Amino acid sequence: MTGSAQDTQPHPDAPASSVAADTVELLGLVAHLQHVAFNRLAEDARVAPTTGQQLELSRLAAAAVDRRDRVLARVVELGGDAEECLGAYARLLEDFDSRTQPSTWWERLLRTYVAEGVSDDFCRIAAASVDERSRELLLEVLDDAAHADLAVGELEAAGAQDEVLVSRLALWGRRLVGEALGVVQQAIAAHPGLGRLAVRREHAAAPADVPAPVDTPTSAEDGDTGKIFGELTAEHTRRMSRLGLTA
Amino acid sequence: MTGSAQDTQPHPDAPASSVAADTVELLGLVAHLQHVAFNRLAEDARVAPTTGQQLELSRLAAAAVDRRDRVLARVVELGGDAEECLGAYARLLEDFDSRTQPSTWWERLLRTYVAEGVSDDFCRIAAASVDERSRELLLEVLDDAAHADLAVGELEAAGAQDEVLVSRLALWGRRLVGEALGVVQQAIAAHPGLGRLAVRREHAAAPADVPAPVDTPTSAEDGDTGKIFGELTAEHTRRMSRLGLTA
Repeated sequence: MTGSAQDTQPHPDAPASSVAADTVELLGLVAHLQHVAFNRLAEDARVAPTTGQQLELSRLAAAAVDRRDRVLARVVELGGDAEECLGAYARLLEDFDSRTQPSTWWERLLRTYVAEGVSDDFCRIAAASVDERSRELLLEVLDDAAHADLAVGELEAAGAQDEVLVSRLALWGRRLVGEALGVVQQAIAAHPGLGRLAVRREHAAAPADVPAPVDTPTSAEDGDTGKIFGELTAEHTRRMSRLGLTA
Repeated sequence: MTGSAQDTQPHPDAPASSVAADTVELLGLVAHLQHVAFNRLAEDARVAPTTGQQLELSRLAAAAVDRRDRVLARVVELGGDAEECLGAYARLLEDFDSRTQPSTWWERLLRTYVAEGVSDDFCRIAAASVDERSRELLLEVLDDAAHADLAVGELEAAGAQDEVLVSRLALWGRRLVGEALGVVQQAIAAHPGLGRLAVRREHAAAPADVPAPVDTPTSAEDGDTGKIFGELTAEHTRRMSRLGLTA
């Protein structure tokens, strides 16, 4: 094999195209978010007030480990390195976490509900542009609404008896969504493949026969990403209204 | 049904004998220890220095949830209440945890290795006296040595390069085993069924044809429990020598 052949032909185990490389970037993000979900849910389980909640939350934590590992298995199938693509996001949520320390159990529940809602929505948008097998896996992983259902149930029940709590949580939710959208912006800036996938869907959605501009560089300033942030905000508003909270 | 019949005949869903009631008490302890293991492993995963260790420890945490739930399913089969029998042990390890706060990663690994070693050994002794199905489940759950193997591997590797660390950890191990044996004593005092099961094995072990004195009350002062503590100490010494540490 000549040097030039090696330059133009990717290794058989390596991502076959830039879309595949971007897909590994997205899979890494989703795996990281599941890993973070595991950490959060495990901490929630530790501090939950009742044995029943501790059991339930620890089961959700274990399920997040399983989902993360299924996503990492797909990374390996696409020729990526599981630990590397997970580690690339290690510091992504540091600012968010330190700036949104919950002071009560309800604030903690709402934080997870809002943060996972926004990040899952973004990943779902980007997942529209990846290969079918990766997309199916991602949508399945992102569809798990067990924690959301638990949060909605508990927050609704608590809010029904306490108007002060409701208005406090509405305020908290507005702060959370600002921080969460900031995380998405940072993720796109640091991992341009994520922005390419998300924007590609926007373009593909309009005239279906026009090839999507896969390699178009993108940034948080683009009109395309502006549309995505509008969509993320609208979905957040819908989620807050499920709780009877004004976004 | 008359009042006296109700007094002498247990509810069909209730444990059929005092051994079954003691078995539920033991299953509750093992389920609690797995729940504690989940919490510890999840915390270990959060603070582990490398992505690889984080992945491995989070998988062990998820496996502890699965084992706990299998034990709780057996509690329900025996007519017990899963949350109640788990909740009965909620404060068991509070003192141990507050008195053995690890100050390094190695101290943390050794704490888990020693605490789980002692408690698993005690549960194995008590498990010898329960019905076959519960015993098989318990021995399977208690046999999982994944964390022990991980701890041995890491502690051996670290100790091989650092004699000061080895002598510090040997000291730490001696403190840990004292506290761990204290926990077993407290558990037997608060849950006499555990002591009955453990002592029953001692009696059954000698002449096999003599019925074991199931209902003999026991306490931590008994010669029988003294024998058990001797056995727990011997097993601890063997485990420490696996690490090249003097017990």
